Amino acid sequence: MEIEYHGGEPEPGTVYLVGSGPGDPGLLTVKAKRLLERADVVLHDKLPGPEILGDLPDERCIDVGKRAHGDRTPQSEINERLVELADEGKSVVRLKGGDSFVFGRGGEEAEYLAEHGVPFEVVPAVTSAVAAPAVAGIPVTHRDHASSVSFVTGHEDPTKEDSAVDWDALATAGGTIVVLMGVTRLPQYVTALQEGGMDPETPAALVERGTWQEQRVATGTLETIVDARDEVGIEPPAVTVIGDVAASRESVVEFLENEREPGRAESETDAVPADVPDS
Amino acid sequence: MEIEYHGGEPEPGTVYLVGSGPGDPGLLTVKAKRLLERADVVLHDKLPGPEILGDLPDERCIDVGKRAHGDRTPQSEINERLVELADEGKSVVRLKGGDSFVFGRGGEEAEYLAEHGVPFEVVPAVTSAVAAPAVAGIPVTHRDHASSVSFVTGHEDPTKEDSAVDWDALATAGGTIVVLMGVTRLPQYVTALQEGGMDPETPAALVERGTWQEQRVATGTLETIVDARDEVGIEPPAVTVIGDVAASRESVVEFLENEREPGRAESETDAVPADVPDS
Ligand SMILES: C[S@@+](CC[C@H](N)C(=O)[O-])C[C@H]1O[C@@H](n2cnc3c(N)ncnc32)[C@H](O)[C@@H]1O
Ligand SMILES: C[S@@+](CC[C@H](N)C(=O)[O-])C[C@H]1O[C@@H](n2cnc3c(N)ncnc32)[C@H](O)[C@@H]1O
Repeated sequence: MEIEYHGGEPEPGTVYLVGSGPGDPGLLTVKAKRLLERADVVLHDKLPGPEILGDLPDERCIDVGKRAHGDRTPQSEINERLVELADEGKSVVRLKGGDSFVFGRGGEEAEYLAEHGVPFEVVPAVTSAVAAPAVAGIPVTHRDHASSVSFVTGHEDPTKEDSAVDWDALATAGGTIVVLMGVTRLPQYVTALQEGGMDPETPAALVERGTWQEQRVATGTLETIVDARDEVGIEPPAVTVIGDVAASRESVVEFLENEREPGRAESETDAVPADVPDS
Repeated sequence: MEIEYHGGEPEPGTVYLVGSGPGDPGLLTVKAKRLLERADVVLHDKLPGPEILGDLPDERCIDVGKRAHGDRTPQSEINERLVELADEGKSVVRLKGGDSFVFGRGGEEAEYLAEHGVPFEVVPAVTSAVAAPAVAGIPVTHRDHASSVSFVTGHEDPTKEDSAVDWDALATAGGTIVVLMGVTRLPQYVTALQEGGMDPETPAALVERGTWQEQRVATGTLETIVDARDEVGIEPPAVTVIGDVAASRESVVEFLENEREPGRAESETDAVPADVPDS
């Protein structure tokens, strides 16, 4: 049998804010796949990963993740480009890693498009904040251990007076914490959480390049996770999971078919830029 | 061009913990779609929604969302059934609405399978907690308004002494709050949040059946959202979004192509059970 789906025909003059999911092409949505195959232009950066980007045809793709001198296209320029292309009557996919609305600046792009009278559609996706832990055997919520989960950015310095993330509140709230963009500042925020009253024995895990061929995992506790990161050599992009659920991995990993042989394939595209928010 | 994908061949004796996404068949992942089309058996409940469930062939489907007398199959029975079917050599899809690991009991099922020596694979999905707000024009994070987002269950009584959700901590944490299973108890937790110090003017929105044909939205503030719910007649399944991002809808909705005509199609399957966690 076939599950029917009739949408995904890109309209001229419309921008599609599309998430790619965490990187496995099988985790693209049916709609995202169809739009990528049929849109006139695709603007993307590196986060969708080598397997998905490798399949996109160069002649319809614009890489806005890098510029000549190693820095990245400013968001304002991307916004303008989207409006220009739509005004030319093109169907445009703006492709982001994970979901566009989870630390993906999709909200800003949507506002800019609406301000400029450009019709747009949001195509939600599988976020790495849920999927990277999941494929490593870690459910972000669990009836016995976690009635809530918070996604936070680890990019900011937690010791900054006006840090936008309230680590003290997170330390006491009791749910699972998933930190994105948090490989580099891991030492700072595990300290902040312990100072906020979180048990140093709280399980923690890092999942790098979840669902990619090169997926890697490090596990430990709030106290040991920095050493585990360094031993395994975890690099961005990775998520940090903090909470009792992080211990689940150990009890299921033996039967978890998602685990791929590490390093089975090497990425042929440029490295993903480090722990920085988009442009 | 075609984006290639070679996975998704179900293996005998293996259980696939698959999320359906929020309900639009276009938001199934490529892998979920293929597994649903090819697995020997699919165990599901109602949350995947009429469009996806309507396409599944009855003879391979087991509805574990209801039983003869209106109550639902206990989780323990579902767990046993999964093991039995896998032991018979079947390839088995366990299909949940949204993502199986976001308030979906996927963690418990994974543990049970591992305990019984059954190989399983996790197939992450688009969670309604991100997607339902997104298609209504609400990004759960925003560079200017929200450096974090928390998903919490609204099923528990917030006035209970040992409530697993710490509404006070959430009220002060400053990020976006997305409440699942929280239509009925909306009055209780908007009060709890205000008592915890949250500004009564904080924007709030309810999105019912996000991405379904029958999607409905109600907007307001912490103070007015209960009335808005009653005026629009919002019913489960719906998510509540609380935080500055909820105001974004207003500025983009005119150009948002996701908005469907309300009531364009009526569901033909049974109603989804109310605001209760799975069995
Ligand atoms: C700018 S944020 C974008 C998040 C994205 N919109 C999403 O929903 O997954 C970049 C961060 O996402 C996380 N990330 C993205 N893809 C990942 C993957 N495949 N595995 C682990 N983490 C990933 C990392 O924390 C990375 O630093
Ligand atoms: C038991 S929880 C399961 C959540 C699911 N695993 C997910 O990731 O979306 C059920 C709740 O999910 C939310 N939900 C599921 N599908 C939805 C949809 N299409 N629109 C709005 N809310 C939805 C509602 O809050 C509902 O009460």
